[in-house]
Amino acid sequence: MWAALAAVGRDPSTGGYRRGGWTPTERAATDWFTDQCAARDLTLESDGIGNLIAWWNPSSDVQGVVTGSHLDSVLDGGAFDGPLGVVSALAAVDRLRAEGFEPSVPIGVGAFVEEEGSRFGMPCLGSRIATGVLPAAKALALQDRAGVTLAHALEQAGTDPAGVGPSPLLERMGTFVELHVEQGRALTAPVGVASSIWPHGRFRFTFTGEANHAGTTLMEDRHDPMLTYAMTALAANKQARLAGARATFGRLAVEPNGTNAVPSVVTAWLDARAASDDVLNQLLAAITRQATERAERDGTSVEVVAESVSPIVDFPAGLRDRLAGVLDSVVGGAPVLPTGAGHDAGVFSDAGIPTAMLFVRNPTGVSHSPAEHAEMDDCLAGVEALAAVLKDLAR
Amino acid sequence: MWAALAAVGRDPSTGGYRRGGWTPTERAATDWFTDQCAARDLTLESDGIGNLIAWWNPSSDVQGVVTGSHLDSVLDGGAFDGPLGVVSALAAVDRLRAEGFEPSVPIGVGAFVEEEGSRFGMPCLGSRIATGVLPAAKALALQDRAGVTLAHALEQAGTDPAGVGPSPLLERMGTFVELHVEQGRALTAPVGVASSIWPHGRFRFTFTGEANHAGTTLMEDRHDPMLTYAMTALAANKQARLAGARATFGRLAVEPNGTNAVPSVVTAWLDARAASDDVLNQLLAAITRQATERAERDGTSVEVVAESVSPIVDFPAGLRDRLAGVLDSVVGGAPVLPTGAGHDAGVFSDAGIPTAMLFVRNPTGVSHSPAEHAEMDDCLAGVEALAAVLKDLAR
Repeated sequence: MWAALAAVGRDPSTGGYRRGGWTPTERAATDWFTDQCAARDLTLESDGIGNLIAWWNPSSDVQGVVTGSHLDSVLDGGAFDGPLGVVSALAAVDRLRAEGFEPSVPIGVGAFVEEEGSRFGMPCLGSRIATGVLPAAKALALQDRAGVTLAHALEQAGTDPAGVGPSPLLERMGTFVELHVEQGRALTAPVGVASSIWPHGRFRFTFTGEANHAGTTLMEDRHDPMLTYAMTALAANKQARLAGARATFGRLAVEPNGTNAVPSVVTAWLDARAASDDVLNQLLAAITRQATERAERDGTSVEVVAESVSPIVDFPAGLRDRLAGVLDSVVGGAPVLPTGAGHDAGVFSDAGIPTAMLFVRNPTGVSHSPAEHAEMDDCLAGVEALAAVLKDLAR
Repeated sequence: MWAALAAVGRDPSTGGYRRGGWTPTERAATDWFTDQCAARDLTLESDGIGNLIAWWNPSSDVQGVVTGSHLDSVLDGGAFDGPLGVVSALAAVDRLRAEGFEPSVPIGVGAFVEEEGSRFGMPCLGSRIATGVLPAAKALALQDRAGVTLAHALEQAGTDPAGVGPSPLLERMGTFVELHVEQGRALTAPVGVASSIWPHGRFRFTFTGEANHAGTTLMEDRHDPMLTYAMTALAANKQARLAGARATFGRLAVEPNGTNAVPSVVTAWLDARAASDDVLNQLLAAITRQATERAERDGTSVEVVAESVSPIVDFPAGLRDRLAGVLDSVVGGAPVLPTGAGHDAGVFSDAGIPTAMLFVRNPTGVSHSPAEHAEMDDCLAGVEALAAVLKDLAR
């Protein structure tokens, strides 16, 4: 399965994947998925958005246990983020069937659309629409970089935009378990269980100074917002280390951005995540305080606007502990750990569906990059762990 | 004169001037100049580029004393940078005539085209072409932001591009004196005399790290070139202060410039200027050393490329001291000081024409901005000083 999927949507020059939602490459990955489900006699159901669940022992009366992940990618992403969860789900079903296991409730294998948000700019788009967190009208008006709306993209893919809305598929999702490659190096065992998804904030810092001549303006006479920004970027890194959190300035805009001009305005976006809402708040406060103090020294000003803040997702403790308990005697045990990345599992959990996640070790911690990797032995341990979890939940 | 010129090319919303070379606004300023010259019975001569000299007592045999500056502006520039030198030149001629002064050599009032380089990206374009420093073919191929070549812009302005090349106007320029508003706050007297134009380097720093996930990558696992850049920007500022020099990072490009991605590459342009070539070299070495040391800590790399380096322009000491001597008994004396800004006077001096500069005090040091300003009393002192200097040189 891995070899067949590996070539789909991969740019041969960079090795990176480009599987944006409802693009031909993402549709090719989905076609591969439907073929795999057909070959296993799984009963495939689709909603009006493009989310898929393929059932083993389907039932219209009984809620089932669903596992799976997504097949789309970030721009120039890696092979594992998403597909590992889908392939492992199919492999776990194969394994349980080979053992002669008969589930007492339906087991579903899911593939949810546009999880990365690489085309329409909103992560977990398929699950946000399916749960109703994102209203249909708002979703359909989203535009990709070429200005194509989601409504138009669905039409182009042969899907009626009228079907966009809360998904009937979720009505029979009694439990959801997503297996995913870990995206840092926090997991040192082959397999882990998620405790939570860290709260995540996106903050826009606007540093304002005074444009001036780079050749003639005395250093003492400047009000250079680049200096205030530079100190803030270093402070953010230091404060995140102290707090055991993450802080990143990855996006900048400089005005007028001329080589021979002291800038008038530097706009910088801070991505900050931490283990709890409190720690995130304290992290932002510490960075903002240092920025403000430096601004006073530089004769500049700084304004901070929260563009988006997602509170912590705590996966239900009972389900989490049940998975960890099962895995105590499988794959050498599975440590419980949080993640800094968002997932469809978080959206489903927030919507009240009992949800858990399994992680497979990432030896380098590289993520969202062609260099993203997991060892085959760890991937096989992931399948073994997922099979054991499904067996327990569907017995 | 000042009131008449004030409205030409000024954006009413920002107060900033936009007089790019060979644009309608810059042509309107030039038309104003030719009218002023005609009203004074000065004999106007033009070369094939658009540089102008208007002669009092013209002669085809004797080299004259030329004063003047430029009428074009940077984007959203101020009222004084350039026009003050042209207006002061005309006012000085008026003053000398009112005194009944009879020059023994011709006195010329010059206006040189596209000094700021705001349209075609090359400062001192008119003087570089006129002196032959910039070959005609290279000049004619320059493009503005809209892709219009200089050749085409000249045609649109009714000028034959075949006339572009070393200017016959300069053959009769025996001495050149440019009066200019000072661009920092270094001048505390009303009027000063230039010693030199500081050497000036433009250096491209490329900081390379590794793109990664802003949410999941441990701070310790990152190779974040933004941190290396940030420390380098602060180091540049500190080193420039220590060296009594200037260092500015005003232009940046970040890859991939996404809020949730640790950047892979940060490219930053350093504008560095110092009192001597040695100090400039030491400044660059100190900044590069600190950048390299920080890159080792960050697990990133840094590459430095000199995009352009202009060595020092030392104005001839004899002429400089003669001006300073004349001004000892005029306007309360004129201190001798260098400047960090480039000027046509530097191009003419490098071409072997005996050249000097007078500066008029800038109380705020703001330059290349609508807020650029000089007090009327200081401007009048500038006219008085220029008149005294012309009287001495043309007696």
